[in-house]
Amino acid sequence: MEKYVREEIKKLNAYEVLNKDFTIKLDANEGVEWIKGLNRYPLDKSDTLRGELAKKLGKDKDEIVLGNGSSELIELAMKAYLEAGKTVVSFSPTFSMYQIFTIIHKGNYEEYPLDDKKKLNIEGFVEFIQEKKAKLVIISNPNNPTGLFIPREEIKKILTSVDAMVILDEAYIEFTNEPKTDFTKEFKNMLVLRTFSKAMGLAGIRLGYMIADKENIGYINRVRSPYNVNALTQEMGLKVLNDQEITNKNIEMIKKEREKMRLFLQGKDLNPFPSEANFLFFQAPKAVFDALENKAVLIRDFSGKLEGYYRLTIGTPQENESVRKIIKEVQHATS
Amino acid sequence: MEKYVREEIKKLNAYEVLNKDFTIKLDANEGVEWIKGLNRYPLDKSDTLRGELAKKLGKDKDEIVLGNGSSELIELAMKAYLEAGKTVVSFSPTFSMYQIFTIIHKGNYEEYPLDDKKKLNIEGFVEFIQEKKAKLVIISNPNNPTGLFIPREEIKKILTSVDAMVILDEAYIEFTNEPKTDFTKEFKNMLVLRTFSKAMGLAGIRLGYMIADKENIGYINRVRSPYNVNALTQEMGLKVLNDQEITNKNIEMIKKEREKMRLFLQGKDLNPFPSEANFLFFQAPKAVFDALENKAVLIRDFSGKLEGYYRLTIGTPQENESVRKIIKEVQHATS
Repeated sequence: MEKYVREEIKKLNAYEVLNKDFTIKLDANEGVEWIKGLNRYPLDKSDTLRGELAKKLGKDKDEIVLGNGSSELIELAMKAYLEAGKTVVSFSPTFSMYQIFTIIHKGNYEEYPLDDKKKLNIEGFVEFIQEKKAKLVIISNPNNPTGLFIPREEIKKILTSVDAMVILDEAYIEFTNEPKTDFTKEFKNMLVLRTFSKAMGLAGIRLGYMIADKENIGYINRVRSPYNVNALTQEMGLKVLNDQEITNKNIEMIKKEREKMRLFLQGKDLNPFPSEANFLFFQAPKAVFDALENKAVLIRDFSGKLEGYYRLTIGTPQENESVRKIIKEVQHATS
Repeated sequence: MEKYVREEIKKLNAYEVLNKDFTIKLDANEGVEWIKGLNRYPLDKSDTLRGELAKKLGKDKDEIVLGNGSSELIELAMKAYLEAGKTVVSFSPTFSMYQIFTIIHKGNYEEYPLDDKKKLNIEGFVEFIQEKKAKLVIISNPNNPTGLFIPREEIKKILTSVDAMVILDEAYIEFTNEPKTDFTKEFKNMLVLRTFSKAMGLAGIRLGYMIADKENIGYINRVRSPYNVNALTQEMGLKVLNDQEITNKNIEMIKKEREKMRLFLQGKDLNPFPSEANFLFFQAPKAVFDALENKAVLIRDFSGKLEGYYRLTIGTPQENESVRKIIKEVQHATS
């Protein structure tokens, strides 16, 4: 929404790259071809990939922008909407990069604590946002690292109650039971972020996308670097877009395995929190982490206020079974 | 240099990614593997590629950081060193993104004009930098779009005379006759940028690197997004690092062709400026541009103060010959 855009960005003309047909291309100081087409800059707005993605999502191309993972898209939102010294609000705990990005982009970061059960008090959160005069709100949904999923109706309450742009970071949305449709048509103060890194299983290619209404996407494009997504990633993104079946099967497997693991952790008194993502957040004695680490099984540990909490990604059935075996052994040994 | 680093960045702890060996990796919420290894996040600091590059450059790994083209590296420098409202200085004309990046990163951009012959008055430039109290100076060397090359000794004069960090954007350095060694060991207020997009002929993979002393690279890493260079680009970068022979042959060819084209444009009274890059900057009647465009030969035109100036990338001998043929024809037709 124009209202929330930085003054300087309202006036900024984006660097425009024209895609013209050519017989000889000597306008971009590119080098001589020696690896098939890679001497050329990639398509500036990932045009072909964006078109395919739009079709799949039932969107217009101008409602989408692609980036180097959701990371770049969060930064683009801050570049467009965050004035120096203004406040970004999220809750806590959540993805720690939100705070780092805010500092990098010269903003002030404020966090609202989740309750003891790691749930969000919506009314309290909205009040906090108003009180802090936030210009930008970031909601990780489902939340990393707790797995908390805030239902659509609650999100809508936030969107209508705050005088701010809201980034809805849906990196893990495919693992929820909610319908995956976005509602950017209804809310002009919302930017939805999705990624190829999680359910699509392609963290290596660094590809994320933003869905928002055309006006917002226009502002984002003003602060986006030309050619931001490289040609290899665009090509791979296109290739895999049509392999939805593999992704869907993986999602179903992960959801089943998540429930199995949750029940296991609960049975072992390791206090797993409800999760609609591809991971579980739980509490455990350090011995559990150490036993896993000794077998070179990596899970995420935390420090500070989250000392004693762990985040376990749901893996393949075999991997998950190995984790359970190790936890059983350590509990047996220490009981 | 610490002196020039933003206060907030001095205090910022970088997001650290640990590369641990593993048998099972369930710490990063990655998806299940279905395309060879691409379910994993790339190496955070492009470790293998960075090591190879360091070896080639005779540098320590900690004196190098990789990015999505030089673009990302310019932005990283601004993130680390540019406080809100402070001034970035460059000369004019130069790469137009410097100004756009400055606005995006909440700075104030000031430009010092090149003289009528598109040369830089070093004393005047240094005075201008001092007068504007610049915190960051950007020097495109050779300069895009004019081709001007500022010799090392002049650059050193600037480095010793200004109270600011200096970005030396050497995207086209391989096309100069000067030895390519950097001098980051001598000057702690300098960041040197290089790229795989030009002489290396790989604009499609978006890969650039910064050379600076370890302390500066440390600050840059604090503001760099984790996993900023994707796995496909890292892999391709590694593959081509050892193909220096192809690159060298192309550079020699371009230098020869550049001189041939310069003499041709001069003979046609199109006022080519001296260039040590892979392009020529010249003045021409609109009819020349139109004739090229009619044959779908793309060259770069400019508007505003640079109306009537053009930038022509040096292509293969065949491409260059086609350009000359078209220019000959249009001049013949209009004379």
